[in-house]
Amino acid sequence: MTADPARPRVRLSAEDRRGQLIGIGLRLLVSRPIHELSIHEVAAEAGISRGLLFHYFPTKRDYYVAVVRAAGQRLLRHTRLPDEGGPEERVRAVVGGFTGFVRRRRANYVALVRAGAGGDELVVEVFEGIRATLAERILAALGEPSPDPLMRLAVRGWLAMAEEMAIEAGEEVAAEELVGFLVDGLGRLLAPLGTPLAPSR
Amino acid sequence: MTADPARPRVRLSAEDRRGQLIGIGLRLLVSRPIHELSIHEVAAEAGISRGLLFHYFPTKRDYYVAVVRAAGQRLLRHTRLPDEGGPEERVRAVVGGFTGFVRRRRANYVALVRAGAGGDELVVEVFEGIRATLAERILAALGEPSPDPLMRLAVRGWLAMAEEMAIEAGEEVAAEELVGFLVDGLGRLLAPLGTPLAPSR
Repeated sequence: MTADPARPRVRLSAEDRRGQLIGIGLRLLVSRPIHELSIHEVAAEAGISRGLLFHYFPTKRDYYVAVVRAAGQRLLRHTRLPDEGGPEERVRAVVGGFTGFVRRRRANYVALVRAGAGGDELVVEVFEGIRATLAERILAALGEPSPDPLMRLAVRGWLAMAEEMAIEAGEEVAAEELVGFLVDGLGRLLAPLGTPLAPSR
Repeated sequence: MTADPARPRVRLSAEDRRGQLIGIGLRLLVSRPIHELSIHEVAAEAGISRGLLFHYFPTKRDYYVAVVRAAGQRLLRHTRLPDEGGPEERVRAVVGGFTGFVRRRRANYVALVRAGAGGDELVVEVFEGIRATLAERILAALGEPSPDPLMRLAVRGWLAMAEEMAIEAGEEVAAEELVGFLVDGLGRLLAPLGTPLAPSR
């Protein structure tokens, strides 16, 4: 299982090579679930041997975890909390980024998060960390850094709702309609607990 | 790996024996995640050999899928839609049963549904069927057998919220508080779409 000898091997630093290999995994993952990712294919795309790939990632699982971590970082970059703006605008930026990210990678997101990481604890941990970070961002947008237990729980629940709706939304529900429903819905849900997001009339 | 010879083997019909073995799995699953279930332990509890267990369930996966299906049936029994009552009362019965079921079996529910079924497609299918049935029950309670896409999606999302909140709720959020928030929240969320659940003042 060597790389095509006709194809010159490009010399990269170890860090660049790792980055390149993870980048290939991320690109392939947009269109297919992670369990269909073939190490052989990744190595071939990088123009290196399978053996060299295993030099950077000793096991398939190491590679897989690195790709999942990178996917998590990418999700977090798509859901940045803007520094400026009102609560509603800032919530909209986070949840709009989140639902857009999930909808563009639906099959893969389901395979990773729901059908579930092949039960891999490290992967579960990565996603648990992302869920916690997203909740902190929403609470910061609401100006609720120290919410009571029910409000914290409600924000977690609302994020799960956003995830489920993004996964299940077909063509007939437009992106703006979904995001509008979720932003408005958060205001409605939290109204009895007292937050600055007023539901629209 | 034979059963204790001092313990008389009770003769059961094939159907009763299958039921007994599944019942043992369900009982053990209340207190531990499914991947920690040992076939040897199940056979010992039933007073039969491991070989005889494999006579009823040819592979560990067959046993595992049968137990998951039975767990799903049990969840559906805990979330029956009452024949009588107003929309709010009927929604409360379904979601109260659901959140109570999840909270009592938290670790196991997470291992099965979230950390995810070891990626097993049959298990994922069983849970997808349960999610669809719960959504139908809620829509029936709301008197919305043919909802538009956004309302159907919203009910799915709200069920994901209920699941997440039931999983994450610590001791500091009481069962009635959680169920009250969810029932009231469904009315608030769906208010712009027009449903018979009025949010409380």
